[in-house]
Amino acid sequence: MSQAKDHNNTALMEKIVSLCKRRGIIFQSSEIYGGLNGFWDYGPLGAELKRNLRDAWWRTMTREREDVVGLDATIIMHPSIWKASGHVDTFCDMMVDCKTCKGRFRADHIGGISCPQKPSKCVADCAGEKTEPRPFNLMFQTYVGPIISEENVAYLRPETAQAIFAQYKNVLDSSRVKVPFGICQIGKAFRNEITPRNYTFRSREFEQMELEFFIKPDEAIEIIHGVVAQWSEGADISEPRANWGWEMWHRYWVEERTRFYESIGLTRDHLDYHWQTPDELAHYARACVDILFKFPFGTEELEGIAARGDFDLSQHSDFVGKYQDFFDEELKAAAAKLTDEEKQVLMTKKLAEAEEKTRKLAAKDQREASEDEITGAKAKMQTWCERLFKGFYIPHVIEPSAGLDRLALAILCAAFQEEEKEDINGKKEMRTYLRFHPRVAPTKIGIYPLLKNKPELVAKAREVYRMLKSDLNCFYDETAAIGRRYARQDEVGTPFGVTIDFETLGENAPELLDTVTVRERDSGAQSRVPLSELRAFLLARMQ
Amino acid sequence: MSQAKDHNNTALMEKIVSLCKRRGIIFQSSEIYGGLNGFWDYGPLGAELKRNLRDAWWRTMTREREDVVGLDATIIMHPSIWKASGHVDTFCDMMVDCKTCKGRFRADHIGGISCPQKPSKCVADCAGEKTEPRPFNLMFQTYVGPIISEENVAYLRPETAQAIFAQYKNVLDSSRVKVPFGICQIGKAFRNEITPRNYTFRSREFEQMELEFFIKPDEAIEIIHGVVAQWSEGADISEPRANWGWEMWHRYWVEERTRFYESIGLTRDHLDYHWQTPDELAHYARACVDILFKFPFGTEELEGIAARGDFDLSQHSDFVGKYQDFFDEELKAAAAKLTDEEKQVLMTKKLAEAEEKTRKLAAKDQREASEDEITGAKAKMQTWCERLFKGFYIPHVIEPSAGLDRLALAILCAAFQEEEKEDINGKKEMRTYLRFHPRVAPTKIGIYPLLKNKPELVAKAREVYRMLKSDLNCFYDETAAIGRRYARQDEVGTPFGVTIDFETLGENAPELLDTVTVRERDSGAQSRVPLSELRAFLLARMQ
Repeated sequence: MSQAKDHNNTALMEKIVSLCKRRGIIFQSSEIYGGLNGFWDYGPLGAELKRNLRDAWWRTMTREREDVVGLDATIIMHPSIWKASGHVDTFCDMMVDCKTCKGRFRADHIGGISCPQKPSKCVADCAGEKTEPRPFNLMFQTYVGPIISEENVAYLRPETAQAIFAQYKNVLDSSRVKVPFGICQIGKAFRNEITPRNYTFRSREFEQMELEFFIKPDEAIEIIHGVVAQWSEGADISEPRANWGWEMWHRYWVEERTRFYESIGLTRDHLDYHWQTPDELAHYARACVDILFKFPFGTEELEGIAARGDFDLSQHSDFVGKYQDFFDEELKAAAAKLTDEEKQVLMTKKLAEAEEKTRKLAAKDQREASEDEITGAKAKMQTWCERLFKGFYIPHVIEPSAGLDRLALAILCAAFQEEEKEDINGKKEMRTYLRFHPRVAPTKIGIYPLLKNKPELVAKAREVYRMLKSDLNCFYDETAAIGRRYARQDEVGTPFGVTIDFETLGENAPELLDTVTVRERDSGAQSRVPLSELRAFLLARMQ
Repeated sequence: MSQAKDHNNTALMEKIVSLCKRRGIIFQSSEIYGGLNGFWDYGPLGAELKRNLRDAWWRTMTREREDVVGLDATIIMHPSIWKASGHVDTFCDMMVDCKTCKGRFRADHIGGISCPQKPSKCVADCAGEKTEPRPFNLMFQTYVGPIISEENVAYLRPETAQAIFAQYKNVLDSSRVKVPFGICQIGKAFRNEITPRNYTFRSREFEQMELEFFIKPDEAIEIIHGVVAQWSEGADISEPRANWGWEMWHRYWVEERTRFYESIGLTRDHLDYHWQTPDELAHYARACVDILFKFPFGTEELEGIAARGDFDLSQHSDFVGKYQDFFDEELKAAAAKLTDEEKQVLMTKKLAEAEEKTRKLAAKDQREASEDEITGAKAKMQTWCERLFKGFYIPHVIEPSAGLDRLALAILCAAFQEEEKEDINGKKEMRTYLRFHPRVAPTKIGIYPLLKNKPELVAKAREVYRMLKSDLNCFYDETAAIGRRYARQDEVGTPFGVTIDFETLGENAPELLDTVTVRERDSGAQSRVPLSELRAFLLARMQ
């Protein structure tokens, strides 16, 4: 049963891959040179699909919100950024070598994968003896400037997020934003995966859409509002409120992002959620939820939404020796009203927390925290409290981080439909179509003169094309039978077809003069629309 | 005089750089870590500016044309692509070392440049003895996969164009395009410049917008149409014609691209053209014109438009051992009507050309072409002719290749305005504003309640904001005097301001109920617009 399902899913995936290649959605990178493992190009329709997804995300994040601004940073950044972020030391996968075939594999992926070096010779789960696992840093490395030396090493960013943290202060100083606010970015990132897999899902070059949303620490909320709004099942998280702590913000963003996926055609049925367990969480993270999509090859991550505390900005503060903080007038005013006792209560609580955290971290390494460590942590916390009372803090962060290529693949998988239907002669045939939401469909409208050898039909169809093309991505097609043309556009998910026929010209039925047939992709339903209303009719159906 | 002008231009550039930093348009990459030479980030307004420029270019290239499709390929491609393209062997700058300070410089840039290694210690034109110039390859290099070895070397693409050539066949097979047609792409490219300079103009990471437009070889046009339309001053190049040869297409694209620049606010006065001389042209190029912009630091290239013949696709054909060609039914039909004599005449002419070209190339190396070389070239040409008569050819290419960062900088320089004006007290002050075309302006509309402590004004202004924001990038601002708010948005080039005042609420002048003041950025002119017409009024002024 499960094997049969696996087989069906593999067959489904093969159909999707084949359609993507045949219709110019996705090609293997450098295919004429034998391809490059883990790199994929988007053809004419794929490039439009990605553009639509990017635009939808950017629009949702920036234009439709007042509290998020954009950034467009470089892929190569100062290498110290990756030291501060922890990537230089810990962004590794464990890899093993096969002593028989010399293939190199990800230690947690050795099952059913072809040897990446010599696919014909070995698979990762072959009988060959493997070396002990050892770490392999996933960052691509290069050198900036004409001298190849340790000091000129640079990395291709493995995520876009760090650029946001690095430019946080500049954005703050130039954009009149106030916490809570966010900075978002779309751009390429690179991970030198040992074993890229699952089509475009785990590739070595990919595009991310990331938001860092900066919020007040809960302690600041408590000082300002007396109490921090606590999350509970059913709490109203539809509109941000001033007294929200990190947990409400985190839940809010999970819901916001889900709404985004719904707005482009994924339903809650397509999605699943994985709440990371305390064991899975990074030590600095408060919570992390993965939004998953049910791909044919498995239910896999589309986006991670992490509550990262103030880890990243604190790391950069330490590394550059300058607080990456925010001065909060409201907090300063509220803190000024605290009594010394109230301040003391808060500080005592925070110092105890600092001590406990230090002991816990040491315990993870199976040792006891030293007195020096504890004193150091408490001194740091005391400074933190004193600065807080003056209105300064390093904001905490909620990070919704999505993969654009994964999203494009999810949209393709969710849209892919096969249907048995009868042709005009009653013969059964398979109809394949992509049920794209009009918002993301690469081509919005197919425009067809019924016959190509009737100049009046062609002239009218060209007129319709010119009328629509500045608002909508149109594809004009006059070759082959009309049913064939519909089928071609169904296959690439064009939501509407407009046919110009003899009735449009006023023949047969004078009352149909200057009307056209509009055909809907999924149902095949046709309606007659006056040319004067066509543009508005179609634009209304794009939302 | 010229020195004074230089000084003024340097001062102007400094003002632009300062404005860009202060208002979140452009930041130095990794600035908190001391920056990274040759890398620049775009802040909230810069990211929007770049998005607008990308969108304008893409829209002009794809949606408004039927003969161009898009592509979105990877930055890391198969290294053989760069061997075929010539980049591995020849994409070099000559560099010299200074024996005194150990600084490394571009040999043709040693004048007035600070030593990139130790700026305080040396300048390139210091007295220190320099080494002989030697080549330095400008491609950033990395390794794909877990093994660092010669066979896993890969390069960050130094241009986006080659991906288009590499995917030419896939696009042809999947997109029902026919020569003439184009493939366009926007994306990052990387050049390890020895001495990055002039702000964002010559940086190490940059974004390109490239079109490869594939056309029939002139010989095919001649067979089909009898004669190739020849360029002459004043020829009509407004609409492509079937009988155009490469020169008409080349001129057409120069004009098209100029029209594009005009459509986003650059005038012909801002631009200049440099037609490369035969000495400057690459050996395979028929012609190349650089569209230049008059930057404060000099008149420099914005875009190159090259007629590249069939060089690139032929190189890839040779390297992969498979013709990257096109089958032209129209050509096949026309060639079938040629007499044997006519074919012979054409072939004789082409063989003579092949021989002459071989001799010329050898002469460039100050040697004579060998008999073998000539025989080889003629045999290749004979095959070419035979294939042509069957309808096959490798298309020729016109390549308009633009730099997005350069364009953003040009737009900023062209938009920057300073004006002395009197404030309400008659005091003279300098007004700085960016005269962006509305199409590219990062923010389109500022929305201002006259006073922030009047809830009715604020509520009405919020209503206007919600009404406009889904169509137009709006900035809501209620702080400071209205003049100050206008000035802030003028400084970042927001073309219109909408002020909600007491008249909007029906006070003072009942006939002005539900009207707002719309202020135009450049002239400061104000007009009263009914709220019901506001959206249409503003949208009409965005074009």
